[in-house]
Amino acid sequence: MSDKVSVAVLGATGMIGQRFVEMLEGHPYFDIEGLYASERSAGKRFGDTLKVRDYTYRQETLDRRIEVMDLDRIAKHCRLAFSGIPTELAGPTETELAQKGVAVFTNAGAHRMDAHVPIIVPEVNCAQLVSVKDQDTYASGGYIVTNANCASTGIVVPLCALRNAFGLKEVFVSTYQAISGAGYPGVPSLDIVGNVIPFIGHEEEKMESELAKMLGTYSAGGFHPADFKVMANCARVPVVDGHTESLVLALRDSPSLEEVAKVLADYRGEPQQLRLPSAPEQPVIVRTEPNRPQPAFDVMAGSPARARGMATTVGRIRQSNGYYKMFALSHNTLRGGAGGSMMNAEYAYRKNLL
Amino acid sequence: MSDKVSVAVLGATGMIGQRFVEMLEGHPYFDIEGLYASERSAGKRFGDTLKVRDYTYRQETLDRRIEVMDLDRIAKHCRLAFSGIPTELAGPTETELAQKGVAVFTNAGAHRMDAHVPIIVPEVNCAQLVSVKDQDTYASGGYIVTNANCASTGIVVPLCALRNAFGLKEVFVSTYQAISGAGYPGVPSLDIVGNVIPFIGHEEEKMESELAKMLGTYSAGGFHPADFKVMANCARVPVVDGHTESLVLALRDSPSLEEVAKVLADYRGEPQQLRLPSAPEQPVIVRTEPNRPQPAFDVMAGSPARARGMATTVGRIRQSNGYYKMFALSHNTLRGGAGGSMMNAEYAYRKNLL
Amino acid sequence: MSDKVSVAVLGATGMIGQRFVEMLEGHPYFDIEGLYASERSAGKRFGDTLKVRDYTYRQETLDRRIEVMDLDRIAKHCRLAFSGIPTELAGPTETELAQKGVAVFTNAGAHRMDAHVPIIVPEVNCAQLVSVKDQDTYASGGYIVTNANCASTGIVVPLCALRNAFGLKEVFVSTYQAISGAGYPGVPSLDIVGNVIPFIGHEEEKMESELAKMLGTYSAGGFHPADFKVMANCARVPVVDGHTESLVLALRDSPSLEEVAKVLADYRGEPQQLRLPSAPEQPVIVRTEPNRPQPAFDVMAGSPARARGMATTVGRIRQSNGYYKMFALSHNTLRGGAGGSMMNAEYAYRKNLL
Amino acid sequence: MSDKVSVAVLGATGMIGQRFVEMLEGHPYFDIEGLYASERSAGKRFGDTLKVRDYTYRQETLDRRIEVMDLDRIAKHCRLAFSGIPTELAGPTETELAQKGVAVFTNAGAHRMDAHVPIIVPEVNCAQLVSVKDQDTYASGGYIVTNANCASTGIVVPLCALRNAFGLKEVFVSTYQAISGAGYPGVPSLDIVGNVIPFIGHEEEKMESELAKMLGTYSAGGFHPADFKVMANCARVPVVDGHTESLVLALRDSPSLEEVAKVLADYRGEPQQLRLPSAPEQPVIVRTEPNRPQPAFDVMAGSPARARGMATTVGRIRQSNGYYKMFALSHNTLRGGAGGSMMNAEYAYRKNLL
Repeated sequence: MSDKVSVAVLGATGMIGQRFVEMLEGHPYFDIEGLYASERSAGKRFGDTLKVRDYTYRQETLDRRIEVMDLDRIAKHCRLAFSGIPTELAGPTETELAQKGVAVFTNAGAHRMDAHVPIIVPEVNCAQLVSVKDQDTYASGGYIVTNANCASTGIVVPLCALRNAFGLKEVFVSTYQAISGAGYPGVPSLDIVGNVIPFIGHEEEKMESELAKMLGTYSAGGFHPADFKVMANCARVPVVDGHTESLVLALRDSPSLEEVAKVLADYRGEPQQLRLPSAPEQPVIVRTEPNRPQPAFDVMAGSPARARGMATTVGRIRQSNGYYKMFALSHNTLRGGAGGSMMNAEYAYRKNLL
Repeated sequence: MSDKVSVAVLGATGMIGQRFVEMLEGHPYFDIEGLYASERSAGKRFGDTLKVRDYTYRQETLDRRIEVMDLDRIAKHCRLAFSGIPTELAGPTETELAQKGVAVFTNAGAHRMDAHVPIIVPEVNCAQLVSVKDQDTYASGGYIVTNANCASTGIVVPLCALRNAFGLKEVFVSTYQAISGAGYPGVPSLDIVGNVIPFIGHEEEKMESELAKMLGTYSAGGFHPADFKVMANCARVPVVDGHTESLVLALRDSPSLEEVAKVLADYRGEPQQLRLPSAPEQPVIVRTEPNRPQPAFDVMAGSPARARGMATTVGRIRQSNGYYKMFALSHNTLRGGAGGSMMNAEYAYRKNLL
Repeated sequence: MSDKVSVAVLGATGMIGQRFVEMLEGHPYFDIEGLYASERSAGKRFGDTLKVRDYTYRQETLDRRIEVMDLDRIAKHCRLAFSGIPTELAGPTETELAQKGVAVFTNAGAHRMDAHVPIIVPEVNCAQLVSVKDQDTYASGGYIVTNANCASTGIVVPLCALRNAFGLKEVFVSTYQAISGAGYPGVPSLDIVGNVIPFIGHEEEKMESELAKMLGTYSAGGFHPADFKVMANCARVPVVDGHTESLVLALRDSPSLEEVAKVLADYRGEPQQLRLPSAPEQPVIVRTEPNRPQPAFDVMAGSPARARGMATTVGRIRQSNGYYKMFALSHNTLRGGAGGSMMNAEYAYRKNLL
Repeated sequence: MSDKVSVAVLGATGMIGQRFVEMLEGHPYFDIEGLYASERSAGKRFGDTLKVRDYTYRQETLDRRIEVMDLDRIAKHCRLAFSGIPTELAGPTETELAQKGVAVFTNAGAHRMDAHVPIIVPEVNCAQLVSVKDQDTYASGGYIVTNANCASTGIVVPLCALRNAFGLKEVFVSTYQAISGAGYPGVPSLDIVGNVIPFIGHEEEKMESELAKMLGTYSAGGFHPADFKVMANCARVPVVDGHTESLVLALRDSPSLEEVAKVLADYRGEPQQLRLPSAPEQPVIVRTEPNRPQPAFDVMAGSPARARGMATTVGRIRQSNGYYKMFALSHNTLRGGAGGSMMNAEYAYRKNLL
């Protein structure tokens, strides 16, 4: 019998839920107890609900049946739930699970701005995880940890590295976001084939508030946002996976381009020191080719094997009128979705919070 | 016999050349004398070289033969040449034609930064057309007028309107550029299907220098660039026609969003007063829907019929931390290509420079 | 006051409904009385529900309000209803309208195989329109006429021409169908970007039954299907508009390829003789270039202007082992959708059935 | 020192060449001696010439330098050359290498129809490999073995299985071919984004001749083609990797659909018995879902790990008018390209021909 932590995957038929399942195949800390979804999907074979292209699921995983979301059952059998539930439905379910003593690691945005719920990217702000101890449900073992929205996650590690080294004043960011970021069925093909949609609901607001929360601090029972400014323009492009983002940064110092590149490439966080299973050895990969990063080449960046798709790739580091310019790319449903919560749970496991 | 001006189309088998031909169908001022291209294409039927999708060429145009670029012949028969020649080949050919007394209106970038060659967008800077009189070849009737690169053209009219009304300090622009901008064969499909390429050779530098030249002045025999700053990030996306651009602007004044929208929508230039055939009645169309402009809906904006694809569409006007944010879209091979030079020639015609 | 026929557009917010609206702009026979859709859309501005790319609606059309589907009101004010309602909802609504005395011209499949409901492509089988006189509701002026599914429509005119001239034994057809054929929201982008889906529900069965019904006869109160065999493979590809179809045909005779091409190009039907507004002068256009037809170039084939997108383009006519091979292309939401019913209604108008 | 066979990769900067390199990483029989290409690429770092998306090359492979094609050097150092040279350039180079004693395994079509050059798909016709002994150069150890064009390879294994079991009379095939099949730069993006191109030069002819050659026999010094008929329609679609093909088959017997599926799924060839490194355990995978195979899900089918992309996936097995219908999918640059020649070389190695 396994002494791994028994986990539930909520929303297992969705794009993020299926990435959770993918990352849980052979995971050293976690064991899938059940795949859960709405009544509409209950009883279906997981393999008949595939959203993830070119998948690597094991046959026994493909053959698992989807179960209806019975919170009592989940609470009874699982210490932890990974939630890929759509944000608009996630709030009460996640709260109830936490009340029942389950540690919830969620990709949904419902609780991200709650008073004691952290948005964790462990290379950046694992110190904020302490905030869960101030959640009402913590005494019973239940709590909620969120990962950031996918567009913020795509740049927060390089921004943290540069902020630490050189100070950060202003971030001008324009996104080229993949369709998988909208979930499934998500974006109708008639809207996006051969097109750009310069609007993603609430995304710009989320980038501005979530980046400030993550790069800020938690003390005296509350979050204190960082004080740099974010000006975001968000757009959807016909790419399956991988958010590309253009950045223009105003830094406090005036490093050379070589110093900027070195700080990014050398950056390591606590997940790297702890060698968490999903942590990429090098969280920010700096490319020197003239035309990188690109989703086609860089979306799965990250090693070792369990950390594929978990590194952020930065390229085209330039300067213009005193500003620093670059492009960043990360996988929106791995690093910016399931992988974010997976690494958060791995970190909590190693910190004896599970 | 027609008393229209007889014109040559150079590079008539390319993406821009074919847009010139399209805009010349039934043109009130100009008559096609010949379609010219390199030896490789000479003798081919125009209709067998099509690059423009869903074309509206007349049958007799489709049946025309491509002729080899004989500059003496062109000079003998044509007062004007529209040039869609690739930039790297265009320089000497255009110079020679000007020396032979031909007025050259070109999309190529070869001469754009020359001392007395203007980059004209007539709604913005038709006053600079006077610079052609300082070109060496002007006495013989020959001169060169360029249109701007397609990404600059896509935003220069709204930038001009806002600069005039409110002052302009900084422009942060990220582009979502269409594949037709690279000409034909241009971008290999393996590079762009399902991908974003965050690099377009020399495009960012062009945007920074050409925008300043266009929004500057010409006096005492020289150009004097405008003094706002441009920070550009250029990328290619899998869209056929239409450059979308995200803008964050620092203005000198602090207009309301309504004032910004009104200034853009009300802007008119000399082409509108002169009712040039290719001039859109409203050069900047402001959309109020939450998710516009989009290439799929707005790329052909502009009326009357001859001005289709000649208007710039602006939408999502917002404010953030004191900056103004918006998206702009314009057709890169019409407004930002052949249509630009077409309107320049129409303006020159009306100003008796032809 | 207009003496045009007053018409309702049902399902006006959908892909087909919006094509009906587009074709009704300035129509010589028909006047839009109202745009109708489900309660969810009622009250919306038509221009805020756009599905048709690069539209050419008039401003007053964009500003019209969507009304809820009130059948009594429609019956009171409209002689005719164009129906773009989804097939699964269309059946009872269309029946009820016919019972109330309205002539229903529908793109929905609900009634296509009914005993006295014809599937009309006027170049092919306008003689079958007589079947409406056997519908129960005909005495009151109400009846139902359908157009075929889009994939059948795309090849039925060339098949008819070849059957008439040379006899037709077997049709092997594989389709490359556009995403607009699935309506809106229709195909999720995650399913089709960079992909092929080799399945379209019921489409192959429809092609086999509808082609036989259309190319058959109506007599003695019943339809008698034609006796050739159809073997269909249907697939979806990432194209916005335009169904491409590969054909291998077994003919009874052994014409030369030139004879095949001539029969196709010379084919004319009653719509051409009557000069119906939406009828293309040449219903089948034969291309001789080596790589046509293509959606990018040929989807809008058809002249005069009102008949754009109404011609079928055929190319690559070849022979192999005694079989005839070719590719055909037609616009799936114009010729194969709204345009089909539009021409049917025009025909009925000219035959005094309205 | 390795006792593996030392191999050259010719055309290593192209799409197929780079797949050869990918498959050679850690190969149990073969060691890369050098990566060769034209003078234009000589000296470049392999990693700067990438065509294969989401690659898995080792760092030392990315850092290798491309060398110019020096046939004497290759002949001196390599027993075997994998050729990804474009067909129009490959002929003389491959002949000369064979004359110099090198065993050439090539994806190029130049020699496929030569008198003693076999087109091998080892699950189908490894018996034909004996033909190399009749090549003039064989005495010196040099010979040429080709793999089939990618569209034929995609269906030849299922066709062989069905022919063996039930007899095969006619094959009606329509292809949905990926852009990587045209190499790099290959298909211009302007030609294929949102489009279908119903023409691939010589592909239909190749399918008809190569399938007959492969499923035929070699005896008495000559090839004897199989006698079934192939009617092919070939088209390009906007998919990166993976040729989908629709099939309608006339068989001699009348098996049930279950028997057809079983024969396909149970088929094994000599590569499976020999457990060749690149041989998939199950060469034809039969899917029972209603909408498979799809490039997005099935292009990398095949196990174990070295055989990813080497299995053919078949689905939607149906019957219509006595014909059998199905869709097949295989990876065009792995199974249908580099992987084909790789498995041929593995087979030759095990048969002591190297």
